[in-house]
Amino acid sequence: MGIFKFIFTLMLATFLTGNLNASDKKVITWKLAQTWGTGMPIFGEAVTNMAERVKKMSNGRLIIKIDSKNKHKAPFGIFDFVKSGRYQMGHSASYYWKGKDMKTMFFTTVPFGMIATEQYAWFYYGGGMELSKEVYGKHGLMSFPGGNTGNQMGGWFKKEMNTVEDFKGLKMRIPGFAGEVLSKLGASVVNIAPGELYTALDRGTIDALEWVGPALDLKMGFHKIAPYYYTGWHEPATELQFLINEKAFNKLPADLQEIVKEAMKSSAYDMLSQSINDNAVSLANIKKDYPNVQIKTFSKDIMTRINAETDTLLNEMSAKDPMAKKIIDHQRAYLKMVRQWTNISDFAYLKSY
Amino acid sequence: MGIFKFIFTLMLATFLTGNLNASDKKVITWKLAQTWGTGMPIFGEAVTNMAERVKKMSNGRLIIKIDSKNKHKAPFGIFDFVKSGRYQMGHSASYYWKGKDMKTMFFTTVPFGMIATEQYAWFYYGGGMELSKEVYGKHGLMSFPGGNTGNQMGGWFKKEMNTVEDFKGLKMRIPGFAGEVLSKLGASVVNIAPGELYTALDRGTIDALEWVGPALDLKMGFHKIAPYYYTGWHEPATELQFLINEKAFNKLPADLQEIVKEAMKSSAYDMLSQSINDNAVSLANIKKDYPNVQIKTFSKDIMTRINAETDTLLNEMSAKDPMAKKIIDHQRAYLKMVRQWTNISDFAYLKSY
Repeated sequence: MGIFKFIFTLMLATFLTGNLNASDKKVITWKLAQTWGTGMPIFGEAVTNMAERVKKMSNGRLIIKIDSKNKHKAPFGIFDFVKSGRYQMGHSASYYWKGKDMKTMFFTTVPFGMIATEQYAWFYYGGGMELSKEVYGKHGLMSFPGGNTGNQMGGWFKKEMNTVEDFKGLKMRIPGFAGEVLSKLGASVVNIAPGELYTALDRGTIDALEWVGPALDLKMGFHKIAPYYYTGWHEPATELQFLINEKAFNKLPADLQEIVKEAMKSSAYDMLSQSINDNAVSLANIKKDYPNVQIKTFSKDIMTRINAETDTLLNEMSAKDPMAKKIIDHQRAYLKMVRQWTNISDFAYLKSY
Repeated sequence: MGIFKFIFTLMLATFLTGNLNASDKKVITWKLAQTWGTGMPIFGEAVTNMAERVKKMSNGRLIIKIDSKNKHKAPFGIFDFVKSGRYQMGHSASYYWKGKDMKTMFFTTVPFGMIATEQYAWFYYGGGMELSKEVYGKHGLMSFPGGNTGNQMGGWFKKEMNTVEDFKGLKMRIPGFAGEVLSKLGASVVNIAPGELYTALDRGTIDALEWVGPALDLKMGFHKIAPYYYTGWHEPATELQFLINEKAFNKLPADLQEIVKEAMKSSAYDMLSQSINDNAVSLANIKKDYPNVQIKTFSKDIMTRINAETDTLLNEMSAKDPMAKKIIDHQRAYLKMVRQWTNISDFAYLKSY
């Protein structure tokens, strides 16, 4: 082969493989819709962390653009946005979709259910992800843990709650499953938009409300008008959710699929760490600046009653749907097992000195 | 420009950029030395998970080969291996290096210190990583959380431990800081190689020992000969460690740096989830198969005394080294703050029903 022909052949080969390389390098842009508003602390940071990590790890080959509710105007439209493919990805909470598929609610948190460490063990090592796949796969969706708030506080009350009777006629903003439980005790459960909560509490439209925990509650100002701050029972480990359109995911090259999965996982776990840090900082601020706030735990009588009401509701759901029963039974069995370990590890330690 | 010249120029350009692409695609191979033996469950899985995730995310551009102690023969040589550059990366535990730099020990766990969720909040959001950088940077090393065992059990004892007096003359295998604490109570603290522990306990060379938790302890067989299994105080959140040679890290392209960091982070967090799951499963097995095992918590008298001895030792370390004082003060202040939150969230919840 002459030298010119050799160089030409070499360049031709490089041209062809070079083109393949060039196609590897094309930039893919995904759109993500989140339930939260622009600049939402903690929840929103889990999303921006994920997108930033994907961008860096993919060397800019996968860009995830985030639309907040300010843009798309449909905070509870995320499921449909992602299912239809209008957005490849979403960030929300699984229990918002119980109206579409009741079984989605068990992947966020359950009253008197697992705490965050137990629930992550269940998701990743105890069979939770497999059950999530069964539920979401039917909708052409993939759901992944999207960040944990940690144990949520039981709410802000204007009056001290001493007995089960105190819930009779209590006007409280507490949505979802927990609201159903308290209505069994005679509470008048209402839903009010977040922006109107402070005024509703101030004017007596409601007597009590639950929000999240010190870090997010402090910004809302509830402590100024409802000084009894009760510890939680109804959302022991609220896990947010990354939703992905399955077809869009399957179109990604394998390395980008893995990058998205790892970025979601590390950002979700990080949100628990951030929640714990930020709640601790805000709690210290409440104690310093608002000494009138009284932190209380509901009496054993109240807890026993609402625990029993929770069980009754879960049994009713089990009776309606075999897959719901499968998930509820699975979570109950896992909780029974894992709580034995929690009790002799972190709980025994915290109690012992 | 003639058509031939145009094609030639295009091909020349592609040849040059094609070569650049080809150099992007070159495979980098790193060597990792781990303290653990081949096939070590949980600890070793954190390492294989990390390497596997790096391989997938980098599309094979960064391969991390793992040498266990069976190969390199120096389980406690990891710090030196990575510092010298003989290995780019290591997996071990920071407290093994206290002989080289006493300040490294605070990045694993401290008796009566933070539990895992609190400690991750401290590492990633409370200033822990910055302090770790100050300590390890001086050695040309980078240290990252490498997986958490969760709260470790206080050990297996042949006899019930009721009072502080019961520790006098007790022959116990309990290494490190915890061993120093118990020797203040008159225990005779010894170190014995893992492979000889069962025989030593069986023959009475020792009366007690601590290992990790149910998942790893059950395989060792201690429950058959020392039925009193005490809950923990000395290692409330043992965090393993990924060590990286800083110069090697700086040579990686930015995308691979991020890939390594995220793979380490998600694998470390996952190890906590796996530890909780596997401990819960093994505890259930112990309860079923070995009903003679009695799970106990040390009395308040014992806990108060060993807590005080721990404080005295920490104060002595603080007095010796200003940087040690800085870390100890930082951890104490953070623990005081974050524990207030733990107490009204997970702890209040676990206690309330």
